[in-house]
Amino acid sequence: MATRGEGRWIGFDLGGTKMFCAVVDGRHRPVASKRESVGVGGDGAEGLKRIEALIRLTLREAGLSPRDIGGIGIGTPGPLDLERGMLLSAPNLGWKRVPLREHLEAAFRRPVTVANDVDAGTYGEYVAGAAKGARTAVGIFPGTGIGGACVYDGRLLRGRRQSCMEVGHLKVWPRGPLCGCGRRGCLEAVASRLAIAGQAAAAVLRGQAPALRKIAGADLARIRSRTLAQAIEEGDEVVERIVRRAARHIGLAAANLVNLLAPDVVVLGGGLVEAMPKLFLETVREAAEEDVMDAFRGAFKVVAARLGDFATVVGAAALARDAVVDRRRSGRPRA
Amino acid sequence: MATRGEGRWIGFDLGGTKMFCAVVDGRHRPVASKRESVGVGGDGAEGLKRIEALIRLTLREAGLSPRDIGGIGIGTPGPLDLERGMLLSAPNLGWKRVPLREHLEAAFRRPVTVANDVDAGTYGEYVAGAAKGARTAVGIFPGTGIGGACVYDGRLLRGRRQSCMEVGHLKVWPRGPLCGCGRRGCLEAVASRLAIAGQAAAAVLRGQAPALRKIAGADLARIRSRTLAQAIEEGDEVVERIVRRAARHIGLAAANLVNLLAPDVVVLGGGLVEAMPKLFLETVREAAEEDVMDAFRGAFKVVAARLGDFATVVGAAALARDAVVDRRRSGRPRA
Repeated sequence: MATRGEGRWIGFDLGGTKMFCAVVDGRHRPVASKRESVGVGGDGAEGLKRIEALIRLTLREAGLSPRDIGGIGIGTPGPLDLERGMLLSAPNLGWKRVPLREHLEAAFRRPVTVANDVDAGTYGEYVAGAAKGARTAVGIFPGTGIGGACVYDGRLLRGRRQSCMEVGHLKVWPRGPLCGCGRRGCLEAVASRLAIAGQAAAAVLRGQAPALRKIAGADLARIRSRTLAQAIEEGDEVVERIVRRAARHIGLAAANLVNLLAPDVVVLGGGLVEAMPKLFLETVREAAEEDVMDAFRGAFKVVAARLGDFATVVGAAALARDAVVDRRRSGRPRA
Repeated sequence: MATRGEGRWIGFDLGGTKMFCAVVDGRHRPVASKRESVGVGGDGAEGLKRIEALIRLTLREAGLSPRDIGGIGIGTPGPLDLERGMLLSAPNLGWKRVPLREHLEAAFRRPVTVANDVDAGTYGEYVAGAAKGARTAVGIFPGTGIGGACVYDGRLLRGRRQSCMEVGHLKVWPRGPLCGCGRRGCLEAVASRLAIAGQAAAAVLRGQAPALRKIAGADLARIRSRTLAQAIEEGDEVVERIVRRAARHIGLAAANLVNLLAPDVVVLGGGLVEAMPKLFLETVREAAEEDVMDAFRGAFKVVAARLGDFATVVGAAALARDAVVDRRRSGRPRA
């Protein structure tokens, strides 16, 4: 039932190092896309110009003008003011208070919606990926950090002005290791790629991980998700035990989330899961099943994300559409 | 804008030992109420008759007939099938599969909504009590167990068929004490009245709690919330430390919930909080503030429930009204 110009939406993934832009059709299918590095140097104003340029390039690729799209959705990890569509800071880039919505609405004269990138990615999996058809879906994305989100009965859970569902900062170990957030024992401090890599590097130095030693040495910057996967394949049992222990903690966090929010589907995505899908799915599933209350046992699935890099752009585009539909329906945006 | 018969609703609190029924008006004010013990002996069919009789008695008290009310809302702790309005079991009473909705709809010819009692109580505080005006409210009710609920942007979070928000079973201590649910380290196993009473009774036997020893001895059945409060007032420092430690765990759980759901208000209620409001509010507030992420610090309040025993009946009545309004609006009940 889309009217002219509303059948296509821009979804934009603004990361710490790269940008990814897609035109997404009314059935959540990307019909054109472009990637670019965010680029180093420059302030937020410079960044806005680069974002705008990539959107223009993607529109050209699709043979569209701004008037042909219904709106623009942007997913980004930085802390946001959702009400104003403002990126409060992008630590990796040194940007501060970047008025994404204001700038892009002026540039394209289309409505702009800003969302947390994990929220957008989980929503993408919900509308078109691994959680399609679920009533309630929880997304957990372990990578350098651990992101989380929840779509409850069709709506993304959010704070009033900011994103919520900080699954990476669920405390899973009261006096556990220090987390980047300054607290102790957060899931992220125990089970993120950095936490795993730290333990794996120590194993390298202890002479317990010969394969990893050969591939990456003890340098955390070189121990990526795929490096860990390769070391396990080549026989580093200690590395496998370290990864499984992290996955069990993620399973424990998943169980807590099931006991709280009763999702039908828990979607696992991110670099670690993509590199070791079987290990993560098995271990998280087992730990979660063991740790949920009886009432929820067997009532949820643990599945792998399906949309990969496209999850965030597809979700951001869908959120842009929802915002426009809601505004039209009620005179105010969806909370 | 209520039409005839819709300005008044029945709210019913079906507990493990007592029943409480109220007629609630369109502004969430109880206009008549009746209490009775559930009574021992008898099966679910017998129980339904007693529930029906108490509703009739309350209606009579208010000078109303069933036709004068818009519907009936029932809050109860037993595991429920929300879709069917069925109480699956009431362990204290020995009832199994009690068709609350079916029976009461036939008896009164008014729509019946069944809800978890903590959900109903939190909703009561949200529509008319300590969380009035909040966008998102989390309720935590420490007592014999620890109940929890969340009203997110006006809607109670629920599972598809069952209640969720099992805050008492958040794992706060991975290898902590055994919980009634069979798992270990749940908040309830660490911070409920039974957990506190167990530690306090041990202190009695060690000679560290002379006041409690005099009042209640080491019998857990006699160590109630008010007993603990009295022992603290009379100088049992060890009892105070035990209670504060439990409250700190509740604060830690509250912080996790804030990081996940970004509530503006956390409502604390239940027997322990009613008996020691200052101790609980202070300690939970402090522990929660210390343990939330920076983004949420200062963005939420910890407050005491205001409606006491009336929270569940007021909330149940409001849920009954919502269900009728939703059904009318969309042709299907609110999820």
